[in-house]
Amino acid sequence: MDEFSLIDAVIAALGPATGGRHVVLGPGDDGSITEVPEDSQLVSSIDTLVAGVHFPSAAPGELVGHRALGVSVSDLAAMGATAQFAIVSVTLEEDQQAWLLDFARGMGVAGRRMGIAIIGGNLARGPLNVAVSVHGIVPRNSALRRSGAKPGDHLYVSGKIGGAALGLLRSGGTNASFAELSKAGADDGLARYYLPSPRLALGCELRGIASAAIDVSDGLFADLGHLCLASGVGAVVDGDKVPLAAGAELESAVVAGDDYELLFTVPPERQRALLALAEDVSEIGAIVAGSECVLEREGRRIVVGKAGYRHFS
Amino acid sequence: MDEFSLIDAVIAALGPATGGRHVVLGPGDDGSITEVPEDSQLVSSIDTLVAGVHFPSAAPGELVGHRALGVSVSDLAAMGATAQFAIVSVTLEEDQQAWLLDFARGMGVAGRRMGIAIIGGNLARGPLNVAVSVHGIVPRNSALRRSGAKPGDHLYVSGKIGGAALGLLRSGGTNASFAELSKAGADDGLARYYLPSPRLALGCELRGIASAAIDVSDGLFADLGHLCLASGVGAVVDGDKVPLAAGAELESAVVAGDDYELLFTVPPERQRALLALAEDVSEIGAIVAGSECVLEREGRRIVVGKAGYRHFS
Repeated sequence: MDEFSLIDAVIAALGPATGGRHVVLGPGDDGSITEVPEDSQLVSSIDTLVAGVHFPSAAPGELVGHRALGVSVSDLAAMGATAQFAIVSVTLEEDQQAWLLDFARGMGVAGRRMGIAIIGGNLARGPLNVAVSVHGIVPRNSALRRSGAKPGDHLYVSGKIGGAALGLLRSGGTNASFAELSKAGADDGLARYYLPSPRLALGCELRGIASAAIDVSDGLFADLGHLCLASGVGAVVDGDKVPLAAGAELESAVVAGDDYELLFTVPPERQRALLALAEDVSEIGAIVAGSECVLEREGRRIVVGKAGYRHFS
Repeated sequence: MDEFSLIDAVIAALGPATGGRHVVLGPGDDGSITEVPEDSQLVSSIDTLVAGVHFPSAAPGELVGHRALGVSVSDLAAMGATAQFAIVSVTLEEDQQAWLLDFARGMGVAGRRMGIAIIGGNLARGPLNVAVSVHGIVPRNSALRRSGAKPGDHLYVSGKIGGAALGLLRSGGTNASFAELSKAGADDGLARYYLPSPRLALGCELRGIASAAIDVSDGLFADLGHLCLASGVGAVVDGDKVPLAAGAELESAVVAGDDYELLFTVPPERQRALLALAEDVSEIGAIVAGSECVLEREGRRIVVGKAGYRHFS
């Protein structure tokens, strides 16, 4: 298939996800065109998934397409943004064209689920690599940031932790189909890994309530470190309060990634507003002065880290 | 160096290019925040450069950084947009950290030259690959597109064609320094390849004058094919009128890429407005009915193509 036919086929496979409310011009030109509503600001993020590093090289295209969009969109959720549009760059080898169409189908489904339009992209030859640039909007000056936590704030996480990594580990990660995982639902670890549901609604609700937020992508403890570094604070987490996915163990769950939940802080005077949301969130600890992140269990310190440290990965 | 120190070093190497007029929040959080002025629309594009495919694997980081930004920004020029911000995703191997800092320095210089802020990004491990998502603004409904050309429109190209490919071919492409090429200027082929100057000012001026536009990235004849396909027209190019870079020959120049000039069409009634711009542009042919793109010289048809055909590359 020549590049033009392939691009046409990719756009067809994406389906209705290429259009959206503020989309003026979708794929096919040198650039796409969108509108940002008055009194809104644009929130932008980019993430790349590399075959063999961020997903198993043999993973089905539909699953990688869904995952790639979800991973990037989760950053919009962490900023409290409403998802608007994505542009996607894929490099792949010439014999991966069938995989690419599966990828586009999976991403199209994810786009509709997450309410984000896929309005442009680029194809190039090279080792399999997927970069997704995502964009959302927030009312002016209302975006959540990592940097607003203060000593005395309460620390919360949404959902359950450790399921995605466990699901990937147990399954080997490649012998699953899109249809099976879609049916399995969010309690299935592998479904959480490949079909993350970024917490977009929760992120929007947390505007004006949370003092700081980040998504749990690198692992709860690492992401807590990022938040604490940006805020210039430390944190103490009560291990008994960390909501674990079925089968997950605390020590591995807090360093496992890929859950795409939100980790956030709430000042005491706004806790009532948070509880009124009736969202699936757990209070797991508190922000303290200093720069140390501590995980305690039954009074014993079982993990201690400096805010922000992480190996290049 | 751990990832955090590396990210700090990258941001430092980018220098003042991380800020800009409509930038509310730059690198370091889950997302960056920008504003889009009222009555403007956002234009977005993404391009990826893969080592060994889109630049020599041994090329110095500074040159690749400058080139990567220029290649993407050229798409904004083709849409008539004013460049605003870029977000950049780089995958590289762990031993390429020094290269990465050179890359950031080169991209920082390019950002200041092109007036675009580099406000966020992502680092991941994998084969060397650079994805750059760029964003600009246009007054509402004034963006240039590929799709507006009509039979009878005049066909123009800016600058000179064939220089970049020739420079790369002659030099081998890796034994050049950023300082040397910066001094060499735009007449030097290799400088054009690594340090493209996207035609942003010309693109803005062409709003309201050009009926269609595209940048010359794949090669003049291939890009003419894209424009014709989008517009549903054909074209005849007079080979004697194609402005060739010093040393370039017509047959190879029209299929060579990487010049990052603008190819555009102008209806007869707007030619006077175009000439009043006093820009460095050449009339090279005309848009005709049909779907055939023809290059003629002294009355002989020397290249004939279908609108839009291109191999996956």
